Amino acid sequence: MREREAPDGKEPPEYTAVTFKPSAELPQLTEHELEVLGEVGRQWARAHRRVPRSDGLPLDPGLGRQRPAPQLGRFSRLAPIGMFRSQAPEELVATGEQLPAPGRLRAQSRIRRVLLGPRLRGSAVVRERMRKLVGLPVLSSDLLSSVAYGPETMLSVLVLAGSGALRLSLPIAGVLVVLMITVGVSYRQTIRAYPRSAGSYLVASENLGDRFGLAAAAGLMMDYILTVAVSVAAGVNAITSALPWLAPVAIPMGIAVIAVLLAGNLRGVRAAGRLFAAPTYAFIFGILLLLGFGAVQAARRGFAPLPPPNAAATQAVGVMLVLRAFASGASSMTGVEAVSDAVPVFRPPEWRNARTTLTWMVSLLVVMFTGLVMLMYLQGVAPRPNQTVLSELGRKTFPVGPLYDYLQASTALILLLAANTAFQDFPRLLFFMAHDRYAPRSFLRLGDRLVFSNGILTLSVGAALLFIVFHGRTRALIPLYAVGVFLAFTLSQTGMVRHWSRVRGPHWRRSLVINAAGAVLSAIVLVTAAVGKFTAGAWVVVAGVLLVVLIALGIRRHYDAVWAATTPRAAWGSTDRPQEIRHLTVVPVARLDLSSLCALAYAASLGQPLFAVHISPDDEEDERFRRQWSSWGDHVRLEIIVSPSRAVVASLASYLEALHLLRPDITLTVVLPELAISRWWVRPLHGHMPARLRRALRGLPGVVITSVPLHVP
Amino acid sequence: MREREAPDGKEPPEYTAVTFKPSAELPQLTEHELEVLGEVGRQWARAHRRVPRSDGLPLDPGLGRQRPAPQLGRFSRLAPIGMFRSQAPEELVATGEQLPAPGRLRAQSRIRRVLLGPRLRGSAVVRERMRKLVGLPVLSSDLLSSVAYGPETMLSVLVLAGSGALRLSLPIAGVLVVLMITVGVSYRQTIRAYPRSAGSYLVASENLGDRFGLAAAAGLMMDYILTVAVSVAAGVNAITSALPWLAPVAIPMGIAVIAVLLAGNLRGVRAAGRLFAAPTYAFIFGILLLLGFGAVQAARRGFAPLPPPNAAATQAVGVMLVLRAFASGASSMTGVEAVSDAVPVFRPPEWRNARTTLTWMVSLLVVMFTGLVMLMYLQGVAPRPNQTVLSELGRKTFPVGPLYDYLQASTALILLLAANTAFQDFPRLLFFMAHDRYAPRSFLRLGDRLVFSNGILTLSVGAALLFIVFHGRTRALIPLYAVGVFLAFTLSQTGMVRHWSRVRGPHWRRSLVINAAGAVLSAIVLVTAAVGKFTAGAWVVVAGVLLVVLIALGIRRHYDAVWAATTPRAAWGSTDRPQEIRHLTVVPVARLDLSSLCALAYAASLGQPLFAVHISPDDEEDERFRRQWSSWGDHVRLEIIVSPSRAVVASLASYLEALHLLRPDITLTVVLPELAISRWWVRPLHGHMPARLRRALRGLPGVVITSVPLHVP
Repeated sequence: MREREAPDGKEPPEYTAVTFKPSAELPQLTEHELEVLGEVGRQWARAHRRVPRSDGLPLDPGLGRQRPAPQLGRFSRLAPIGMFRSQAPEELVATGEQLPAPGRLRAQSRIRRVLLGPRLRGSAVVRERMRKLVGLPVLSSDLLSSVAYGPETMLSVLVLAGSGALRLSLPIAGVLVVLMITVGVSYRQTIRAYPRSAGSYLVASENLGDRFGLAAAAGLMMDYILTVAVSVAAGVNAITSALPWLAPVAIPMGIAVIAVLLAGNLRGVRAAGRLFAAPTYAFIFGILLLLGFGAVQAARRGFAPLPPPNAAATQAVGVMLVLRAFASGASSMTGVEAVSDAVPVFRPPEWRNARTTLTWMVSLLVVMFTGLVMLMYLQGVAPRPNQTVLSELGRKTFPVGPLYDYLQASTALILLLAANTAFQDFPRLLFFMAHDRYAPRSFLRLGDRLVFSNGILTLSVGAALLFIVFHGRTRALIPLYAVGVFLAFTLSQTGMVRHWSRVRGPHWRRSLVINAAGAVLSAIVLVTAAVGKFTAGAWVVVAGVLLVVLIALGIRRHYDAVWAATTPRAAWGSTDRPQEIRHLTVVPVARLDLSSLCALAYAASLGQPLFAVHISPDDEEDERFRRQWSSWGDHVRLEIIVSPSRAVVASLASYLEALHLLRPDITLTVVLPELAISRWWVRPLHGHMPARLRRALRGLPGVVITSVPLHVP
Repeated sequence: MREREAPDGKEPPEYTAVTFKPSAELPQLTEHELEVLGEVGRQWARAHRRVPRSDGLPLDPGLGRQRPAPQLGRFSRLAPIGMFRSQAPEELVATGEQLPAPGRLRAQSRIRRVLLGPRLRGSAVVRERMRKLVGLPVLSSDLLSSVAYGPETMLSVLVLAGSGALRLSLPIAGVLVVLMITVGVSYRQTIRAYPRSAGSYLVASENLGDRFGLAAAAGLMMDYILTVAVSVAAGVNAITSALPWLAPVAIPMGIAVIAVLLAGNLRGVRAAGRLFAAPTYAFIFGILLLLGFGAVQAARRGFAPLPPPNAAATQAVGVMLVLRAFASGASSMTGVEAVSDAVPVFRPPEWRNARTTLTWMVSLLVVMFTGLVMLMYLQGVAPRPNQTVLSELGRKTFPVGPLYDYLQASTALILLLAANTAFQDFPRLLFFMAHDRYAPRSFLRLGDRLVFSNGILTLSVGAALLFIVFHGRTRALIPLYAVGVFLAFTLSQTGMVRHWSRVRGPHWRRSLVINAAGAVLSAIVLVTAAVGKFTAGAWVVVAGVLLVVLIALGIRRHYDAVWAATTPRAAWGSTDRPQEIRHLTVVPVARLDLSSLCALAYAASLGQPLFAVHISPDDEEDERFRRQWSSWGDHVRLEIIVSPSRAVVASLASYLEALHLLRPDITLTVVLPELAISRWWVRPLHGHMPARLRRALRGLPGVVITSVPLHVP
């Protein structure tokens, strides 16, 4: 694989180091950080008291070689992980075999396992390399499926100006074809320049700065969510057009489809990649068949267009209307960026194979799009409620039923596949953002099945909400569509212009011109879509992009602050060297039961200064408790706080904070007696006092919280 | 106050000791338990290592006398509790003054304070003693308000057999009057025998056993929830009868009323008790006025009944119909038990004043009930939709509008008051049950405002759900009503029969006969209601009572098991004496950041054997981490678990469990590095790993969990 050129040597090291490995969650340290660590360590070495080393451990070194008894895994709600094999000294390998689950609470892990399959080993992250003939259908489903709704949304804007205006679709389609070719060629340049991963987020971040990168990412995120919602809606529409009696359950059907996509992707459907080839080819074949039949029919009547059904004009034909139709038609281009995101999955030479595939894809798109728009004009098809124009065209064109059914079925299938593409790309985008600390760290995590479960869940929930809010009406969702895609296109191509002017590789002038043309055309569509459809819903996307960028910047700010606060530095306070920590142990005792006695015994066994605190609601209870305490033997100093307002948590916290203010040099260890109740459904019977105390005490400076659980049934 | 007789000395001590004090949550210990404690303590005294006493503490003894600086209370989400005044040595009093809140997160406590008022001191639990003239209206609102819907439900059963059947209301009312007098006299006996608290739960538990007591309590719980739902529904009906344009918002209105009752009761409206006198007297006056006007009108036409509006019969007059009408009319008696629950609130001699008040109440009930039924018959009133019969009667009888308005307003008011009675009784009943460990312990807790907030919340939620499910239709709720009340009546009176035959005080034979008569009559109503209305909804109550009893028994079983597991015993295991605890400290380290270094330093400073564990997803990361570790200086033995399936929690838990199985004598202290993040809204950015680890480890035997928080912004 050819490495990306980095002529000025200024590239941030992360981009090249990004891999989808499970260890991505655990960051590497720089040399400087390692040095600081060493400095910190040397301060330990100067300790006046020797830190116990491993030799003194009662840790059986044979543990690694032993296979513990199968009654392991008693801790609840977890799949019991098998056992340990020793490999090197001081190293164990959890083999990941699952032990037979002992009874009840395993239900959860069992359901999980049946639905999602067993956990996969980290080493199972494989790169499936694709031939061009496989890559084409897998990566093009999103793009090609767009012709199932792109022409329709264009026509449904035009028809507002009466059926006469429908003929405007031909010139608009001409302009769109120019746009498609320009963007396609433009992306060919990007692939050449960024053969590892040419996603808009990376390209825009690197060349225009992080804010623009985030804007592109936000646009793409909106786009992926919309892709799922729109594709599912269009797929469901294709079904209800063919089988109108299913129309009343359209929304549950769509939600079910999203749920299936969710489950399938959580399970990890990577291996099924090449199965995806079939529906895409089937769809291409179906459309070409439609075009062929239509051409023959039109030729028979001398290419005279049939008149479309009369529709009254509600708007005049104006610049705004044409621009809106143009922006709507541009939604046929969603998905063109798929190849550039996925260059590394091709067989070597990757970038060359990817470019060839992209060329094929765009050619197919141009043929299918222009063919469909022309045929719709010739056959006099106009948008109607309850029926997609593609379905209408099929009904008008095909002489026999089975061909129409085939068309509708393959349309529905490729639309669902297109939704699936978003399930691949959205989590990957969030992974890159999380890697740059612009998204929550949890998006770095590979789930049990080595997929980014959190990203997949986020996408599903977002798409399902959108689908429900818009009642599954495709046309209502399309206005929101073009803005996000073309924002990403524009920023990515602009980034490439910047790239060429900086890098100046071979043919850089030609590449720069091509990318500049792509950027300008994309920007025109972007502005057209954003302005022309602002009130029709595009404002949601504009606001959404702004919001995502602001949130991402806030997240980055927070992570940076936390990083600054947690990165090791040579001397950071009073608790950095074990020999300097002074202890004081506090045991809050509510009643003298076994759980408190265990906590007291544990606290006393630490051998540090110790006292107990009791919070009493009134003097009478105070007396009673004192009597219990002295019956026990008064082994530990007892402080009683009488709190007439019965505020246990606040009183204790205030007390400990006062203690800390008086003696900030002391580390307070609060030893909390706690009941560990094995059955979850009886836990509410015991209140939440330990949890509330823990939450409150965690906020106090200089306090360490120790829970001593007593196990009860 | 006269103590309850306890001639056989076999009474459980709790009943007499039950008080609504804040210390009820903290149980007393018996002498035996104190002795066991002493035995446990003596084992400590034999310690080979001296437990540090207070003298060695770095605890400033002046803390108590100091007023800490006002920057106290930094811990979030808590009302900052003021400060400490020293009283005795080793005793502090949290005065409960609230410090001025420093900024933002105090919003929650402020809203709370505005809605509910400031926290009250525990000593503010006062017993308001009532004169009879005050006690009568306060305690009778529930009972007397029942006549607002009791006659109506009876008529609405009878009218099913046509308007001719309405005249059957007169003989049925006669039987009901006999029932009322019998139950009233029967309760007089109960009050004499149980002057402290004569609630059905206590009486039935003590005389018939806990199961019957629980059945009575379950019946009453259902009844209280129904009282709130029915009273609110009837109150809203009274309003919409007068102002029909409010009918569409009847349900939101009812929910709002329940919310107001909830807020008012959480705030604690005890002091307003005597304000309650007014509406009750106003209602009594209104009904008597109605009866007077009606009597005059009827007398003018020689007491000839007006014919009711014609209604077609949908059922034949049969035994079943009459029985169902009887059971429906019996719902007029709900609330008669209120006095017996509240004997101690009367001025001394409490039981005598309570009895007198009960007599007045029942007399008023009989007069108002019979008067209304007769007047309804004379005025030819029949149930109609959208109008209560009381409202109809008012419209027919009163010559002028204001009198009708007065009647409706006072009806609505007393019905809301009746709902309020349930808000007093329901939490108290749950308190008694919780005190006997038949209900969750949280019902023992007095809230900030010295009311049983949890009981009040439970009642409100239950009533609101019921109100919504039944769409606020009073008549739909009434069939569920009688079963619960008369179950409690029957069990309580049966218990009294048992009581007299055991105790044999003065006049015991007469008392026994009276109670037996009450029990038999109540049982007849119970069976009538349960059988006659089983399919109409009474099955819900029957099932509910069974369910509550089963749950209560389960709760008791659990508490008993926990009590057995936590009560101190002379020697309970390896962790009972501090000198016998052997330590091993484990620090799970994900990355070598400041938070891990703090945890390592803390763990090392404990001076116990120590090792660190790192869980690595693959060998590569393993190597990387080892390098970091040796850069730091390799001060602590490091175990690396390679977990290719990336199961961090399960791997660590399995490892620790294996360790425990090998060396069960060692107490494992797991020192968890944790970030304490002050702003809650950024917490999701950091995952839940520490919380998940804590949950999993808490289930392991022999493991103590220590959180070392590092504070970050």
